[in-house]
Amino acid sequence: MKKISFILIVLVAISCSTVPKPATSGDPLPSWNDGTNKQTIINFVKEVTTAGDKFVPIEKRIAVFDNDGTLWCEQPLYFEMIYSVDMTKAIASQSKELQKKPELKALANGDMKTFMKGGEKSILEAFAISHSAVKPEVFDKMAQTWLDTAIHPRFKKKYSELTYKPMVELLKYLRDNGFKTFIVSGGSSQFIRNFSEKVYGIPAEQVIGTMLKAKYDEPTHSIAVTTDLWHNDDKEGKPVGIFQIIGRKPILAFGNSDGDQQMLQWTSTNTLPNLSLILHHTDAEREYAYDRPSKIGQLDKAMTEAKEKGWILVDMKQDFKTIFAFE
Amino acid sequence: MKKISFILIVLVAISCSTVPKPATSGDPLPSWNDGTNKQTIINFVKEVTTAGDKFVPIEKRIAVFDNDGTLWCEQPLYFEMIYSVDMTKAIASQSKELQKKPELKALANGDMKTFMKGGEKSILEAFAISHSAVKPEVFDKMAQTWLDTAIHPRFKKKYSELTYKPMVELLKYLRDNGFKTFIVSGGSSQFIRNFSEKVYGIPAEQVIGTMLKAKYDEPTHSIAVTTDLWHNDDKEGKPVGIFQIIGRKPILAFGNSDGDQQMLQWTSTNTLPNLSLILHHTDAEREYAYDRPSKIGQLDKAMTEAKEKGWILVDMKQDFKTIFAFE
Repeated sequence: MKKISFILIVLVAISCSTVPKPATSGDPLPSWNDGTNKQTIINFVKEVTTAGDKFVPIEKRIAVFDNDGTLWCEQPLYFEMIYSVDMTKAIASQSKELQKKPELKALANGDMKTFMKGGEKSILEAFAISHSAVKPEVFDKMAQTWLDTAIHPRFKKKYSELTYKPMVELLKYLRDNGFKTFIVSGGSSQFIRNFSEKVYGIPAEQVIGTMLKAKYDEPTHSIAVTTDLWHNDDKEGKPVGIFQIIGRKPILAFGNSDGDQQMLQWTSTNTLPNLSLILHHTDAEREYAYDRPSKIGQLDKAMTEAKEKGWILVDMKQDFKTIFAFE
Repeated sequence: MKKISFILIVLVAISCSTVPKPATSGDPLPSWNDGTNKQTIINFVKEVTTAGDKFVPIEKRIAVFDNDGTLWCEQPLYFEMIYSVDMTKAIASQSKELQKKPELKALANGDMKTFMKGGEKSILEAFAISHSAVKPEVFDKMAQTWLDTAIHPRFKKKYSELTYKPMVELLKYLRDNGFKTFIVSGGSSQFIRNFSEKVYGIPAEQVIGTMLKAKYDEPTHSIAVTTDLWHNDDKEGKPVGIFQIIGRKPILAFGNSDGDQQMLQWTSTNTLPNLSLILHHTDAEREYAYDRPSKIGQLDKAMTEAKEKGWILVDMKQDFKTIFAFE
């Protein structure tokens, strides 16, 4: 009996040590098809977590992931853009002040066509209004309600169900191996924080996104978000955001578009072993197929650089056994 | 035997669950004298970690700490200011370009008096040069060398030895109870990240500080820090920084000066149970005694508000059994 107790106590000690448990036996990435890309990822994780030349201390195992098109779907339009327009419509319909602008009056009346005439400018206006016209607490409630109810036009599912199962597995696999996982997205931190913990296991404080300038309102002791841009977390803004906010260069970066190119570049200059990966949307049947000429999630220069530098191009059609959990 | 194995397995399950272990038995804060303040802290931690009305889920246990004057000494001058001037001297002595400015030529030649004639302006100039004139990797090496060698004029100890033992205990006690501890400092993130993990157990990515604008240099794939201010993490900048970067309102905030007032205010508007604390420097013999009229670490308005709102005023002379570990 003593012997058994001793063994169990040793097991407790091992499994409770600060070093995380090694990946559970069996396939850590069951939604990935076997192949070179899956094997490269697994080999990398094994190397950096095993004593030897390529070992990376746990505090330096920083992994960064783009969100739109990398962790969840971004077609036919970035989901946060759809949200922003929906919310701006709701906010404008309650505000005589905002309805002084003809395009917002049109939107409030459900005339989407008139509102969208401005193209990108209309989208940015909706982004600024939806994020700044209400208090952050109200923003969070609106975002959560939207995420619980709005339905994707093609898949007829909630947007939060359109996360990629193999990517969610990869996030967990990395964390099980001592990595700290971050989102580094062109979308807003405010929006992403409303679902990142629930759908990805990534807490609010590990989300870096685009941020509007915020102010502290002294009399009410509250935060008010303005319409001015503070940090544009896209392209060169991504390594800058990581530098400022995480303060360490990642050893793994995963993106899907030219907006991620600089983040992958910067990661690949790490003197520690590192891995840069791009998710290539190749499956029109199960999801979407797009790259060089696409308006949303354009993958052109980054694909060229990936091929030159040997970054991993993950092929959704070939590499993903399952794309969405609901399949 | 089966029964014992079962009990041990249950113990394994309990101790390995994501909820951290309760604080070890015995006094979790041995460097604090027994008294109301220590008891208030312990009661708060017990309440928010125990099932009941005041329980706070683990992901919401965010604790924020000012650094200068709260976690380590800030007299006779903020240590980072001393560092900035030392580094600017070293950088200017290597740069004909910088020596075109008379005050920097004087500094390069060891004439501190002439350099410091500009007062606060000189300090800010030194801050900007020391943080921007060299690459971030070089900055880190210089900071580490300085921390390993520079000596405090009064205590004749390295600056990193001038952390407050009771505060380091408190950080650990909070983490042992599932809190995530952050530094929210008027000092620069870049500087603080060079010692926060080692002396406080706070990793780089949990440090928010003042930040200069940084740029991504496309040709070299590297980050360059500029001389322009991006985020002034002082006064109202503190709640703003927490909102932008952590994305959650803390339930515990600890500061020592008027620069922390807004952070404590904002924390005390949390709808969850919360605690705001101020470290009052009252011990001229073992450390320093200063508050309302002090130039460094002025504690005036925040002390008035503390008394009005019942924030905890920790009295270093009364509440700290030990101040520095080397005592």
